[in-house]
Formats: sequence, structure tokens, C-alpha cells
Amino acid sequence: MTSHAVYMDIALNNARAMKGQTDPNPLVGSVIVNHNRIVGVGTHLKAGEPHAEIHALRMAGEQARGGTIYVTLEPCSHHGRTGPCAEAIVKAGIKTAVIATLDPNPIVSGNGVAILEDAGIKVIVGIRQAEAGKMNEVFNTFITKRRPFITLKSGITLDGKVASHTLSSKWVTSEEARADVHQLRHEHMAILTGINTVLKDNPALTARIPNGRNPLRIVMDSTLKIPLDYQLIQDKQAGTWIFTTENYDKQKRKELESLGIIVIPTEGTNTVDPRKVITYLGQHGISSLLIEAGGAINASFIEHSLIDKMILYMAPKLIGGKHAPSFLEGTGINEMHDAIELSETEIQPIGKDFKWTGYPIYSDKRDCE
Amino acid sequence: MTSHAVYMDIALNNARAMKGQTDPNPLVGSVIVNHNRIVGVGTHLKAGEPHAEIHALRMAGEQARGGTIYVTLEPCSHHGRTGPCAEAIVKAGIKTAVIATLDPNPIVSGNGVAILEDAGIKVIVGIRQAEAGKMNEVFNTFITKRRPFITLKSGITLDGKVASHTLSSKWVTSEEARADVHQLRHEHMAILTGINTVLKDNPALTARIPNGRNPLRIVMDSTLKIPLDYQLIQDKQAGTWIFTTENYDKQKRKELESLGIIVIPTEGTNTVDPRKVITYLGQHGISSLLIEAGGAINASFIEHSLIDKMILYMAPKLIGGKHAPSFLEGTGINEMHDAIELSETEIQPIGKDFKWTGYPIYSDKRDCE
Repeated sequence: MTSHAVYMDIALNNARAMKGQTDPNPLVGSVIVNHNRIVGVGTHLKAGEPHAEIHALRMAGEQARGGTIYVTLEPCSHHGRTGPCAEAIVKAGIKTAVIATLDPNPIVSGNGVAILEDAGIKVIVGIRQAEAGKMNEVFNTFITKRRPFITLKSGITLDGKVASHTLSSKWVTSEEARADVHQLRHEHMAILTGINTVLKDNPALTARIPNGRNPLRIVMDSTLKIPLDYQLIQDKQAGTWIFTTENYDKQKRKELESLGIIVIPTEGTNTVDPRKVITYLGQHGISSLLIEAGGAINASFIEHSLIDKMILYMAPKLIGGKHAPSFLEGTGINEMHDAIELSETEIQPIGKDFKWTGYPIYSDKRDCE
Repeated sequence: MTSHAVYMDIALNNARAMKGQTDPNPLVGSVIVNHNRIVGVGTHLKAGEPHAEIHALRMAGEQARGGTIYVTLEPCSHHGRTGPCAEAIVKAGIKTAVIATLDPNPIVSGNGVAILEDAGIKVIVGIRQAEAGKMNEVFNTFITKRRPFITLKSGITLDGKVASHTLSSKWVTSEEARADVHQLRHEHMAILTGINTVLKDNPALTARIPNGRNPLRIVMDSTLKIPLDYQLIQDKQAGTWIFTTENYDKQKRKELESLGIIVIPTEGTNTVDPRKVITYLGQHGISSLLIEAGGAINASFIEHSLIDKMILYMAPKLIGGKHAPSFLEGTGINEMHDAIELSETEIQPIGKDFKWTGYPIYSDKRDCE
């Protein structure tokens, strides 16, 4: 007999394949097994379309009766476009339901399981729970914190630099690492940078890969210095939202808005507070944010405990220089024991470089959430 | 039939086991095979003691006759304490000699092979050449450049920092990484640091591992600011040499010398030129140097293309701060295409940290050798 974990892994892999196209919904996969063979497979493809279980039940048809359904996330109990999945599972005559994780939303968590159990279905929860949770780290953060899951990306040298003291920076990392960044952009709903990066590089911030989905582009620009002829203003490849302070150039705002750019003034006259930006994005349904900015903005997010995940493309090179810019500036910590550790650190070779992934651990006193 | 490479690997492994105890001689291993079995094994243990081939021949005795000798380095042709090894091989009646690398010293390279071939021995050169060369990177640099092989070691965070902006630095890396540093010290003839590191940490710079051999301690101190009650002056655990400028404190020099410290004034009044230090160390038989210093000294060595190997213990942590010290300061490169790449980059997990090893590649115009 094949183990529950094997079937759940199939469901997880199918779910993961949709990364970047289900926002703001989670990735979900489902498999239906009857008489020791798979009779249905389903994956959630896009918000507004059927959930994974519905696809799997449709494929299985009458063969679902008496079978076991595997689903990576608790079936929903609400009446959405395709009705509550839990009820559809009951109707199809499923005998056993194996679920990786409960719904992260505390208001509805457990409701789907209750419907199944009330109908006499045997329910097993927790198979591949960790994997299923990590797969939906974005969705889970959005649901529980009402703000986007925030990933900081930077391309750096071994000495943590992003450019030389003369600001020469083409290129820090290899072609392969830079191509990977376009995949990251595709997987995020929005991308954020600062006005200094814009002025230096005139970037498009698009996902330049086949079938790449461009993220919404967010710029922190405290006085609206962004030139009107820049790519972010003119290229119409994706929306551009500019967060500014009370100190913004009124005439420039009108010009930007006439070009279809959204300008969002925030409280304060000096710099844009990252917390204001994040709250606004959360309220407007942005569930994932990629930060590709300079050391000052990166530090301002870190200092507010707002980075959930870090992805560093590290080139085995040295730039040197007391005044060469680092990917993390600001003031930094005072005492070594306050250093921000990364958990679940992984290193993966990519071209000549190394891709580090990790999750910052903030001590209680730093956490502003 | 077993391949030559298998026997050579045995010789290489035996040779490598002596790392840190043969200076200024190279690591050498030898194996003698006759009728498909090993009849002798030898390793060079210590300068002044027999070479590897002599130990192997003694173990083999009469069984060497007609056999094959494997040796990781070309047998010597000079009349040292144990006579030329090439002649001893001839006398023992060896039929075939398999050699990994020729002698790196251009004055004698090939002479050992010539003695063997003149005596009718079949000679094969080049089996495991790259491995044998790397094993003796220290010796080869010393012989060909008449200066120590220089390794820069630093314990850093992901953002290249060695301390916070308040200079808090205990500890950047894990206990396991710090223990590994003591092994590095054991493997080097000398260790170099700067006066700022001394004033901050009052370090002993000793190899605190079982049977650790303490390196000679070298300090760059342009005016002789080192306090007389510091460990490097008082502990007698190893010699201490202080390189200074013409601007040194004359009275302090007398006090230091009365305590057995060697003071070496060099030309110039501002900072000690690293090239002067390295030339002096080469002239005094120091074949390997470990640099454990701050960002300014590290940069001064890099800028003179004087770092042969880098070992970075990287903690998955963030310090941040525009003014927090990095392991590489100075001016740094101007243009990104002048960044110093590392070759043969390797990453090894150690405790919670990662140990990077690599060899800087200097472009021609930077190389001052």
C-alpha cells in the first residue's frame, strides 16, 4: 500500500507548479485515490476559477465514490464561485480525506474539517504539514497579518557590496543569477524600489522571461523626483505606484497622474515610512512584495522587522572600499547579540554565484507587528 | 591491476596528514608496490629528517627490488642529510617511478627524473599533478616567489561586516568556526595583525587546540603603540615581531626589546608597507602567513595583490550599518569589471556558519610581483 505521504507529495508538486499565478489565492493541489490507483488530480490555477478539489472530483467522476481525497489545504466551507469544497467532497461520496494543513485564517480554520466529519468522512490532518505551510508562506502571511509577504532580494559580493565607491555596478552577479531575478519578479504581485535606484538605473522592473507576468511597480520617492521620461512612467508594461511624503512636488503629481501613474502621499515630510507603504499594499490586496532597493531602504525595512525572507545572490568577488555601498546600510545593530540571524538558510549554486535563502528572526523587542 | 592513481592517492593522503609540521619543507608521500602489493609507505615528517622515499625504501627493504615507487614530488638530486633520494631509488633496484609533480624550483626541476632515467628506470610524471600541486601551494609559492604563501582569514556576516557600528564583535561566528581558526593558526608559520586589532582585543593569537603549534606573531604598528602588559608582549607563548615605521617611539622600542620582542623599523613615516613586511618574512624563512586583521590592513594586502588564498567564515546573520566595519575597507576597486574574482570557490558548512575558500585572481596591471 502506498503511503499517504506519497500521494500528498504528488498534490504538493502539482500545487507548486502554479507558483505566481494564483494570487491572492493560495497554491492548492488535490489527488483522489480509489482501489489503489489515482482517479483524479486537481490544482487551483487562478483566483476565481475552481478550487483544486473541484477539478479532481470532476476528473474522477463516479470513481470518487468510496475513495480517498488528498488535499494540501483544508477544503473551504464558504459559498464561493464553486460552492464550499467540503460539501462537494461529501456529495461525491468520498470516504477518507487526508489534509496537509488547516486553513490559516482563524475565523474559518477547522470549519471544512467539521463539515467532512459531520458527514461521516474519516479525516486525517497533518501529512506533509511543514511543506504545505512553506509552499503558501505568502498566502499565510497575507491572511494572518493583512500585509504582503515581503522578500528582500539583492545581488552582492563576498564583502556585502552592491557597487564600487564610484557606484559602478554592472554587473555584480552572473547572467544566470540575473535571469533568476526575472523569475522572482514573475512570482510576486508587486516590486518595490527607491528613487535613488530609479535615478541611477532607469529600470523597467519587468519579468523578462517567456510568459513572464510583470509585477506592479512601487517606488518610494519622498519629493517626486522621478523623471517623466523614465521607463516606469512611460512603458505601460505594468502599473506604477509612487509613495511620497507631504513634501511632494504638486505640479509633478498632476503630470504623473495624467500619465496614469498612481501617486500616494503619506504622513511625514522627510522619508516615506515603510510601515505606511506595507499597510496600504495589504489593504489593496497585494499579497507578495519583492524589494529590489539600495542599502538605505533595505535597512529601513529590516529595522521595522518587515522582511520575511531574504534572497541574496552572492558573487565570489571582492569590491572593497570603506565607502562602497553595501546592501544593508542605515545604522545597524548596536550589540553583536542583537544581530539578525537567518533561519532555514539554504545555499544553491547558480552560474558562478551562490543563491542564499533564509528567513530573518527578529527578537521580540524589534518586532513591531 | 590497480591504477597508478589509486596508489598515488594513498601517497597524497599520507603526505597531507603532516600538514603544519614539515615547514619549510613540502608535504611528500611515497608508496612502493611490488607484485601487486604495497611493500613500503613513507611520509616526510619534519625538516631535517628523511624524505618520504627514504622511509618507504627502508620499510620495503629487499622487497623494493623490481618494484614501482610512487612519490608525490620529484625525488631530490641534492646531497642533503639523507643523500639524494633519486640515487637511493636507483640503488634499491626500483624498476618504475611514478611521480605526481616535478620540483617547483626551476634550478633543480627535472634533475631527479634525469638520474632515474639515466639508470634505466621507467619514469611516469603527472599522475594526480593538480592535487599534488595544491597540497604544496605554500611550499611552491615560497620556492618560486621567495615570500610566504599568504592566507587572509576573516569571520564575517552576510553583509560583510566584522562588528557593529559600536564595534561590538563578540561573536560574529559560531564556536565551531572559531575552533577551526585555531587549526589554521597551527598550520601557519606566522600570523599577522594590526595595532588596532591588538588594542581592541588584546589577543594571544595562539593555536588553542590539543598539540597546537603556535605561529610567530607579527604586528604592524607604525608608532609602537602596543601596551607593554599585553599578551603578545608578556605571554612567551611564541615569538612576537613588530613592524613599525621610521616614526616609532624610541624609548618603547628599548622596552620591547628588553622583553624579547623583535622590532623591525621599515622605510616611511605613515603606515607600514605590506610589501616590506612580506619581503622581510620571506628572507627570514617564513613560508606561510595567516592574516587576521581589520579591513584597512586586509585592503592594503589585497591592493598589492598579496593575498594568495581567502578563508571566510560567514555567519548567516545581518549586522547592517553604513558605518559598521567591513572585513575589506580601503578604497576598493573603481569599476565593476575590476572586481577581484575568486577561483576554485568552495563552501563548507561549519557549525551554523559557512566556510568559504577561494583564490583571488588579480588582473595583470594589479600584480606587483
